[in-house]
Amino acid sequence: MHIAFIGLGIMGRPMAMNLQRAGHRVHVHGRRPESMTPLVQAGCTACDSAQVAAAQAEIIFTMVSDTPDVEQVLFGANGVVHGAKPGSVVVDMSTISPSATRRFAEDLGARGIAMLDAPVSGGDVGAINGTLSIMVGGKPEIFEKVQPLFAVLGKNIVHVGDHGAGQVAKACNQIVVALTIEAVAEALTFARQNDVDPAKVRAALLGGFAASRILEVHGQRMLDDNYQPGFKTRLHQKDLNIVLQSAFELGLALPGTALAMQHLNALLGADEGELDSAAIMKVVQRMSGL
Amino acid sequence: MHIAFIGLGIMGRPMAMNLQRAGHRVHVHGRRPESMTPLVQAGCTACDSAQVAAAQAEIIFTMVSDTPDVEQVLFGANGVVHGAKPGSVVVDMSTISPSATRRFAEDLGARGIAMLDAPVSGGDVGAINGTLSIMVGGKPEIFEKVQPLFAVLGKNIVHVGDHGAGQVAKACNQIVVALTIEAVAEALTFARQNDVDPAKVRAALLGGFAASRILEVHGQRMLDDNYQPGFKTRLHQKDLNIVLQSAFELGLALPGTALAMQHLNALLGADEGELDSAAIMKVVQRMSGL
Repeated sequence: MHIAFIGLGIMGRPMAMNLQRAGHRVHVHGRRPESMTPLVQAGCTACDSAQVAAAQAEIIFTMVSDTPDVEQVLFGANGVVHGAKPGSVVVDMSTISPSATRRFAEDLGARGIAMLDAPVSGGDVGAINGTLSIMVGGKPEIFEKVQPLFAVLGKNIVHVGDHGAGQVAKACNQIVVALTIEAVAEALTFARQNDVDPAKVRAALLGGFAASRILEVHGQRMLDDNYQPGFKTRLHQKDLNIVLQSAFELGLALPGTALAMQHLNALLGADEGELDSAAIMKVVQRMSGL
Repeated sequence: MHIAFIGLGIMGRPMAMNLQRAGHRVHVHGRRPESMTPLVQAGCTACDSAQVAAAQAEIIFTMVSDTPDVEQVLFGANGVVHGAKPGSVVVDMSTISPSATRRFAEDLGARGIAMLDAPVSGGDVGAINGTLSIMVGGKPEIFEKVQPLFAVLGKNIVHVGDHGAGQVAKACNQIVVALTIEAVAEALTFARQNDVDPAKVRAALLGGFAASRILEVHGQRMLDDNYQPGFKTRLHQKDLNIVLQSAFELGLALPGTALAMQHLNALLGADEGELDSAAIMKVVQRMSGL
């Protein structure tokens, strides 16, 4: 199948590579020309613009940073809509606003182009290994059509609902991850201040109801004081901003999420936005002078 | 081995039963005489007081509600210290204050009685099935001595550190559980208010970094709107009160824990203290008029 892949960052590059290796003809476009080099060496076709890539493809993947980037790539100068054929499908795997997603789906639909929102969880390791969790919003028949390609990219693939539902699920994911990091950070700090070995506490808690992937993985990062990403604080902050903006629009109080957001803000203020968001631990510690 | 078991509530009763079934001679005492009946039928000896039970035993288990209850059972009229032989061991499996625990261990030690703090996680189901998580504080040689009895009661048994360390680990457990419930409640409410099926969101999130026992078990309780305990809100509130009192003494800010505590307080205020603490969901919902 002819596929376009637009956005070749830390996530998009290995995802496009996996599609190429699965036997598809992948037409790639990245803002930085050098991002295309390894993909061209693997057999992908480099394209000068999203428009050119989209014109070659039945399915057009986008994997960029934020809502305005998706809008630019889809509708801007040399964007997807200027090249995509009616009947093609845009699959946006970026993490962006659910309400903007619904608007994009409508605008594309008016031009005869289908859309799925399909944000992912699992980080660059999941992208490389093809083990991402993929949360999909859009029409069932379009989901069915793209499903074989999702199966190349990920493992836990859930069709959550209509347009925007994938983004809502991803937003929920980011709420839970942020607050569970806060939980583990406060617990391990409480242990340390009580002169109890936080590594033993982590081990004890992993056997019971406090067990989570975050306690396991991010808890270990905290014990090691190693905040190499992983998932960068500035991206987690961006994602919770989407959540809190949506909550603002809905008139919905999310006090725990708002608190976690303050700790991400504090990391950005301390010039630590490039650290893994498990670095919320650093905020919890220095708040009390630790 | 001759064992005393004091405190025959929803947790203590099945634990004493499991020790009896493992072939030990168990001398039981409960405040309510009828709590002893099924145990006597199973072959345990009923005792009129903690003192009498302790006098028969090498190892004396206590499983009561709160710090003052443990103090009363150990040091009050007809309490353990008036019966226990020097060389015996008190194993307190209640969830109480770490600092009070250290004081009790010292007072018992002065009378030649060893102590372990060994609070548990896993609820009545874990108590019945002998699959509790047990977090132990105290001297290593005493832990070794009691280990075969712990193995009857639980599965994940961790010697966390010196006196009080078990209670600190349990406090950490309650922090993580409360905040993870808050996280899941906010995320599922966010999904619902965005017209996305929270059951599908839960399924999608279980495959990634948001996965936790709480999302699995308590998330399902929230979807079912079924807050049968499980673990009662009023006990979770009591446990976080221990945490926040200890944080007060240490000069340690735990803002997420403090927030979760407010939601437990709200449940108590609404006369919902007997519900499972997953009912934090009800507070998150009604805050925004849902």
